[in-house]
Amino acid sequence: MAAIKHVAITGGTHGNELTGVHLLKYWRNNPEIVCRDSFVTELHLANPKANGCNRRYLDQDLNRQFNWDDLNNHELCGYEQNRAKSLNTLLGPKDEPRVDFVIDLHTTTANMGTTLVIKSDDPLVVGMAFYVKEKMPDVTLFYEPEDRMRDNFLISLGRKHGLVVEVGPIPQGLLRWDIYDQTRQATELCLDFLQAFNTGDVPSLPDIQPGFQFVEKVHLPENERGELTAMVHPNLQDADYQPIHPGDPLFMTLNGDTLPYEGTETLFGAFINEAAYYDRHVGLSLMRPVDIQLPKS
Amino acid sequence: MAAIKHVAITGGTHGNELTGVHLLKYWRNNPEIVCRDSFVTELHLANPKANGCNRRYLDQDLNRQFNWDDLNNHELCGYEQNRAKSLNTLLGPKDEPRVDFVIDLHTTTANMGTTLVIKSDDPLVVGMAFYVKEKMPDVTLFYEPEDRMRDNFLISLGRKHGLVVEVGPIPQGLLRWDIYDQTRQATELCLDFLQAFNTGDVPSLPDIQPGFQFVEKVHLPENERGELTAMVHPNLQDADYQPIHPGDPLFMTLNGDTLPYEGTETLFGAFINEAAYYDRHVGLSLMRPVDIQLPKS
Repeated sequence: MAAIKHVAITGGTHGNELTGVHLLKYWRNNPEIVCRDSFVTELHLANPKANGCNRRYLDQDLNRQFNWDDLNNHELCGYEQNRAKSLNTLLGPKDEPRVDFVIDLHTTTANMGTTLVIKSDDPLVVGMAFYVKEKMPDVTLFYEPEDRMRDNFLISLGRKHGLVVEVGPIPQGLLRWDIYDQTRQATELCLDFLQAFNTGDVPSLPDIQPGFQFVEKVHLPENERGELTAMVHPNLQDADYQPIHPGDPLFMTLNGDTLPYEGTETLFGAFINEAAYYDRHVGLSLMRPVDIQLPKS
Repeated sequence: MAAIKHVAITGGTHGNELTGVHLLKYWRNNPEIVCRDSFVTELHLANPKANGCNRRYLDQDLNRQFNWDDLNNHELCGYEQNRAKSLNTLLGPKDEPRVDFVIDLHTTTANMGTTLVIKSDDPLVVGMAFYVKEKMPDVTLFYEPEDRMRDNFLISLGRKHGLVVEVGPIPQGLLRWDIYDQTRQATELCLDFLQAFNTGDVPSLPDIQPGFQFVEKVHLPENERGELTAMVHPNLQDADYQPIHPGDPLFMTLNGDTLPYEGTETLFGAFINEAAYYDRHVGLSLMRPVDIQLPKS
């Protein structure tokens, strides 16, 4: 397996998620912390203009623009659609990337702690997530393997794909030390793993780790004018990764009436009351527990 | 004392503070809840355009535009500066207002619970705040009496001034039931008080209540390029209304070094890590405890 030579850490992919933006500054001032003998680490502010405006994005969510067809569709020319093409030139090109691995830093208003989003079934990616979880047992793993060329996330620009580090709860537009430090720790462990991988020093890892797989988004209730008529139920607020049973309270209307979960399967909530998803009136994601297997390398 | 005939409740003065925006919708659908025999209650979305963009403001902070001189300065013609003039026409004019009292609804990312901002030493305003505190003992009172014509807050458009209801912690751009319900309760108690005032049924209130008075804003540390180099210290995060003694940790640098409070007086923090104040790199307000006297009416 080819060694990892070039790693990119990206932050500010969503411009109002300040944690990654400021970790990039920290590492730029302390490059020895992200340097490893066996590879070079680059630090990139992914959406400087949105960050300057303290907005998630100007025209489109940047972290949905990296599908191969979209990167080659020059009719898609909104600000972030162009920026994605520019990042594809900088880190890729996606079909033959210069950069081997991308670690993209995100935050959420949901009470999700540190979550690693795995979008590949490559042993390198899954192994990295398992390695971080060994060192930080409270980490939650999302497992959504997807063909790298079809994946629309920024991390899909890496030759061996990448990993999303998603930490919350934190409001948009500010810094909290706890969130900053958890993100720093998880990211530096990712680099430690790549160094161990390159030098053949990867410790033994479990064959299986528990995780979650996305099932569906649940929309907040609206009236006929498209206005919100309810919010996340107080029982569900901050209860990410807890089971939601059929009949459990899901939403509370502006009037104080409870609306139950009408599904028939017990599932688990994530991204509960994520501010960034209010633009589409999404209240939470439903997830199913999954045993993630470490593939043989 | 002239009776209160017209009351305005305003929300969305900051467009990404959704709690007030949705309480207005709730009361519009349930007008009997804000109706009282002795006065009329109007419901106004103060900055619909900023709310539509999910931003605090487009050009200027709307809640700093109501100083009498500024209202009459037509060279001030940014979006919110014009909107303030329009609201002055709708609710005022400030020198002879149609509306008697304004209740303006705000939220904060800081852990401030329900805070009432008193900007008048009129017995009506102070009495209302004391009345709410009798019913909701956890409420905190800010006491910043200011000449109504000089006050730049929206509430200063009311003939008898008004009251700011400020509730947190909540991120910008989302709803939480706990915050929504506290704001609702406090506001409805304000209306109960005005009804009691009009009908001569105000219950006996304490002569004195503890509160806080603003001393100064403390800026987040910056480097020579104006970039943040530190954030609120984890000991201080979420510790609004707790004492800050000389030498106590105030900030933590991106590198993890602690910067102490260098003042010589023990003061108290408020608006600690308020996202809206990052535009000016303000980390917190320092407050001094004050005994608020209920003036004789």
